[in-house]
Amino acid sequence: MKTSIATVSISGELPEKLAAIAAAGFDGVEIFENDFLAFDGSPKDVGRMVRDLGLEITLFQPFRDFEGMPASHRQRTFDRAELKFDIMQELGTDLVLVCSNVSPVSLGGVDRAAADFHELGERAAKRGLRVGFEALAWGRHINDHRDAWEIVRRADHQNVGLILDSFHSLSRKIDINSIRSIPKDKIFIVQLADAPLIDMDLLYWSRHFRNMPGEGDLPVTAFTAAIAQTGYDGYFSLEIFNDQFRGGSTRSIAADGHRSLIYLGDQVRRVPGAEGLTVPAMPDRTTVEGVAFVEFSADQEDARNLVAILKTLGFRKTKIHRTKKVELFEQGDIRLLVNTEDSGFANTSFAVHGTSAYAVALAVDDAEKALVRAIALGAEPFGQPVAEGEVEIPAIRGVGGGLIYLIDHKSDLGRFSEIDFRPSEEADHAVVSAHLQRVDHIAQTVAYDEMLTWLLFYASIFEAHKTPMVDIIDPSGVVRSQVVENNSGALRITLNGAENRRTLAGHFIAEKFGSGVQHLAFETPDIFATAAALRENGFRALPISANYYGDVEARFGLDPELSERLKAENILYDRDDGGEYFQLYSGTFGEGFFFEIVQRTGYRGYGAPNAIFRIAALKKQMRPEGIPTV
Amino acid sequence: MKTSIATVSISGELPEKLAAIAAAGFDGVEIFENDFLAFDGSPKDVGRMVRDLGLEITLFQPFRDFEGMPASHRQRTFDRAELKFDIMQELGTDLVLVCSNVSPVSLGGVDRAAADFHELGERAAKRGLRVGFEALAWGRHINDHRDAWEIVRRADHQNVGLILDSFHSLSRKIDINSIRSIPKDKIFIVQLADAPLIDMDLLYWSRHFRNMPGEGDLPVTAFTAAIAQTGYDGYFSLEIFNDQFRGGSTRSIAADGHRSLIYLGDQVRRVPGAEGLTVPAMPDRTTVEGVAFVEFSADQEDARNLVAILKTLGFRKTKIHRTKKVELFEQGDIRLLVNTEDSGFANTSFAVHGTSAYAVALAVDDAEKALVRAIALGAEPFGQPVAEGEVEIPAIRGVGGGLIYLIDHKSDLGRFSEIDFRPSEEADHAVVSAHLQRVDHIAQTVAYDEMLTWLLFYASIFEAHKTPMVDIIDPSGVVRSQVVENNSGALRITLNGAENRRTLAGHFIAEKFGSGVQHLAFETPDIFATAAALRENGFRALPISANYYGDVEARFGLDPELSERLKAENILYDRDDGGEYFQLYSGTFGEGFFFEIVQRTGYRGYGAPNAIFRIAALKKQMRPEGIPTV
Repeated sequence: MKTSIATVSISGELPEKLAAIAAAGFDGVEIFENDFLAFDGSPKDVGRMVRDLGLEITLFQPFRDFEGMPASHRQRTFDRAELKFDIMQELGTDLVLVCSNVSPVSLGGVDRAAADFHELGERAAKRGLRVGFEALAWGRHINDHRDAWEIVRRADHQNVGLILDSFHSLSRKIDINSIRSIPKDKIFIVQLADAPLIDMDLLYWSRHFRNMPGEGDLPVTAFTAAIAQTGYDGYFSLEIFNDQFRGGSTRSIAADGHRSLIYLGDQVRRVPGAEGLTVPAMPDRTTVEGVAFVEFSADQEDARNLVAILKTLGFRKTKIHRTKKVELFEQGDIRLLVNTEDSGFANTSFAVHGTSAYAVALAVDDAEKALVRAIALGAEPFGQPVAEGEVEIPAIRGVGGGLIYLIDHKSDLGRFSEIDFRPSEEADHAVVSAHLQRVDHIAQTVAYDEMLTWLLFYASIFEAHKTPMVDIIDPSGVVRSQVVENNSGALRITLNGAENRRTLAGHFIAEKFGSGVQHLAFETPDIFATAAALRENGFRALPISANYYGDVEARFGLDPELSERLKAENILYDRDDGGEYFQLYSGTFGEGFFFEIVQRTGYRGYGAPNAIFRIAALKKQMRPEGIPTV
Repeated sequence: MKTSIATVSISGELPEKLAAIAAAGFDGVEIFENDFLAFDGSPKDVGRMVRDLGLEITLFQPFRDFEGMPASHRQRTFDRAELKFDIMQELGTDLVLVCSNVSPVSLGGVDRAAADFHELGERAAKRGLRVGFEALAWGRHINDHRDAWEIVRRADHQNVGLILDSFHSLSRKIDINSIRSIPKDKIFIVQLADAPLIDMDLLYWSRHFRNMPGEGDLPVTAFTAAIAQTGYDGYFSLEIFNDQFRGGSTRSIAADGHRSLIYLGDQVRRVPGAEGLTVPAMPDRTTVEGVAFVEFSADQEDARNLVAILKTLGFRKTKIHRTKKVELFEQGDIRLLVNTEDSGFANTSFAVHGTSAYAVALAVDDAEKALVRAIALGAEPFGQPVAEGEVEIPAIRGVGGGLIYLIDHKSDLGRFSEIDFRPSEEADHAVVSAHLQRVDHIAQTVAYDEMLTWLLFYASIFEAHKTPMVDIIDPSGVVRSQVVENNSGALRITLNGAENRRTLAGHFIAEKFGSGVQHLAFETPDIFATAAALRENGFRALPISANYYGDVEARFGLDPELSERLKAENILYDRDDGGEYFQLYSGTFGEGFFFEIVQRTGYRGYGAPNAIFRIAALKKQMRPEGIPTV
């Protein structure tokens, strides 16, 4: 499997695009004609630039409105083709994409089209070039790869072949099995794109909503596997039209693209009959068994405030790091570290982002394998010196430059807190346990245009799936929310994408100078027992509007006594087919960080219907400190 | 016609929303339940707040999943209704919206639903309340206002009526004539929304794409006229779900909404049979006959540079203002003013925005009437003191706070340049006329979320229509472009909406601190004669990539000699069914302002296919001065 991407998929000017494509690790690049036309250099210059970067030009595209033209237009169509051939020879590429005709004057007819392609093949052959035909989903006469293949078959020319594109075939729900009857040598290149499943006009959907394989909902893996099963092992090339990518970071979108192909190849090679695909072997997706710890970076003053809140939440200081200013707080299976070092990564993170939950440690089945897989998928490994005898925990960079530590029980890793820490001498006798057992979920807030990046990041490295996107209505705008979770519930990360800085999520990103963990949710088996303990500890719950409780009582037909208790404790309520959900929030801390406590009895969601009330309450609380309200 | 808007249509928290709705001039407001639930005050508080602002609560909504429930759910459904009734009585509103049931457990059946509504009517009547039934376009059993009306008819209760919503009816293309058979007293309220015509899933379309009447493509005027023809003259209430509005400026979106209703009423009252609608009378839409002048504000240094460019474009200084530092430059019918006053509005504009084309004067049939209409539609009039004997030109505030002057020939207005100006003594002998005849179009760049505001502004005040939106691909993102033009071509304003600041358009807005005129296009009858004259004047055309010309020659089958001439002069070419289009650009000036020269021979567009090449060339030129490229 060789990887390629069309220049149209990412933003920037041509030299910038090519540099980013090379840096991301692609083998080749499709030159999209407009990128070349707008560039102020000759085709030779472009070819040289591409090759100097170690890339190959896989395709020149698109050549439009070719096949089946009436006699009055036919000659000019071939003249146009000859001019494209001139450019291709100068560029140094042998393959052009001809997409099916959309012109209202085109005549259609399989044999007429086949004759046109035969002649084009003859002309191409004279120059050592090849022609690939692709059925656009909205082609006037040809809009199905099976018909395009029939034309290529009848054209019967060595220099004419088929180009398959996952979007065009899957958007029309064309049977993937039809690919298996196409000989591999007649597939000249494969283009790939995914898309979210929204029922809309095909052209509009294609032009605005395409995304990287694995970022959308189309069966791109099955499509690619069907191709691999033919024995095809050539270029797989991304061709993505997406408004967000067009405005996004060139390098980051290119890196996402490369990751999506590597991940796709890794899935496809596991499909029976598709093992022939040449892809780098890597360990299986990592099974996450839990959240081993969450680490905060803070200065002394913020740390005092944070620790005070942790104590009201029922956490006790259990251990102190032997050589660093790091303290461990525990409750149930939850471990929180507070790092106030004056140097090192935590300190740097503090300097940039202020007090934040900058690192999350995941308990996995095999940390070493997890690291290998993450790196194979383009994750950036992280390491910093540790004192002699201390445990060096493998880590990768995650959302907002924060860290994801990987911990297992195959080595000393699982014993890091015994090895690196000594018991605390503080007794914290006054702290009452709040019965918190485990981290239920970690909520990360990201700029909206990073959402897909991190969904793909998590889902490609870890054994997990993503849930459908939900719109959360913040009083000042829409926040998109999507969850990466595994079946056991040990890994649950909610990603909230903020489109503007006036939303609570957007405010957090702006104030914190970047994406990151905005809240941690802990699980309790008994929300009312927890609420009582919290009260004893002096915890102040986020006050929820009284109006909410009348509605929740009516909506779910709750016992008035229960809704009174919920109201008294500021507990939010939701229910689904699986069971009930109770939510209790802290106020905000620092740049908008907060804690949540949940009880779930079979409930599978995250309380999305309650988000609007939680956001309104948080904003009300923060207002004096300057959330803009206009 | 009484005007109302649902709180869900605009962003912000409830008090902020209500204040903006009152400030925009609405008579009433629909309280959307979630806005009330998230608000930390009692229903009585909300009612008081509304009434203190001089508003009426027109509706409490929505009450969901009511009609046709099975016996097991029916009792709780009525219990829920009674709780809503409690809230309504405290709020002080008598009307609730029941939208058609979407619950999978609902049973359907017109008579079952009618019986449910009869009972609900009985309960409502006891409290002096009324119930309105609305068919959601995606209702499970009822999704057509004709069926909803049949249920209301059979419910046969004075306190039960129908709610019509333009989106639900028009999105399903339900025959508008069916409205004419509904008695006016059974229409309890009318909700209005428009939407762009994009073929997609109804619920997704409704939740994200609705906009104000006149901003989209649905026949909302015909829908409203059909209602007015029944004799209905009650509340028309906006209910808009739009991601952009949810993140937009609360006051500005509310003002747009009010303008849209006033404009709609003005159109509807002209429909035969709909004259009964009570709407403020106002003059007809204003006919624009041309661009009388464009005025630049600049300091001395920028003015020198600007004047130098104007001279290379073939403009001569013809007049000087008698009392102000304002000079007039002329060529053909084009008049450009350069204002370097040290005080007054032009100077203030300069201080904020830098050198810019801050004012556009439109020649209209009747300036006085135009002003009256503009003010009736919520435009802000502008005036500043003039010296005795000078002409005071009526004006309104336009895009980015700039000015639109209104000039006619019914008064001294048309002679302002004779009255206020004296002849210039400079001869400008060296300047060669470039045969520029008139302003072809004015290109304004606006933040994307202001696009609809200004489209509605122009189209409601002036006799003009809008063209479909076109996506312009800037190397760093998408720019949305839409044109307001009249049939004569005398008024042509292109609006470019920038989504991020890395696009050329976005850079302009960011650097200039706001939306405004980014370029002026002048018309010539002979682009090559103009190019020759420009060369003589020392004008430097924007260099276009040589690659462009090979493609344009092939694409249009141009005579190679013509394409060589185009290339030599850096002229861009396009063609449509009407004729040909030639475009020649200057480089940028100041914060990204530039000039365009066009020749059109029946061509109706604006060269959108060439925009990508023009943008690439402008960005290349600007790069040294710091357009971010990554």
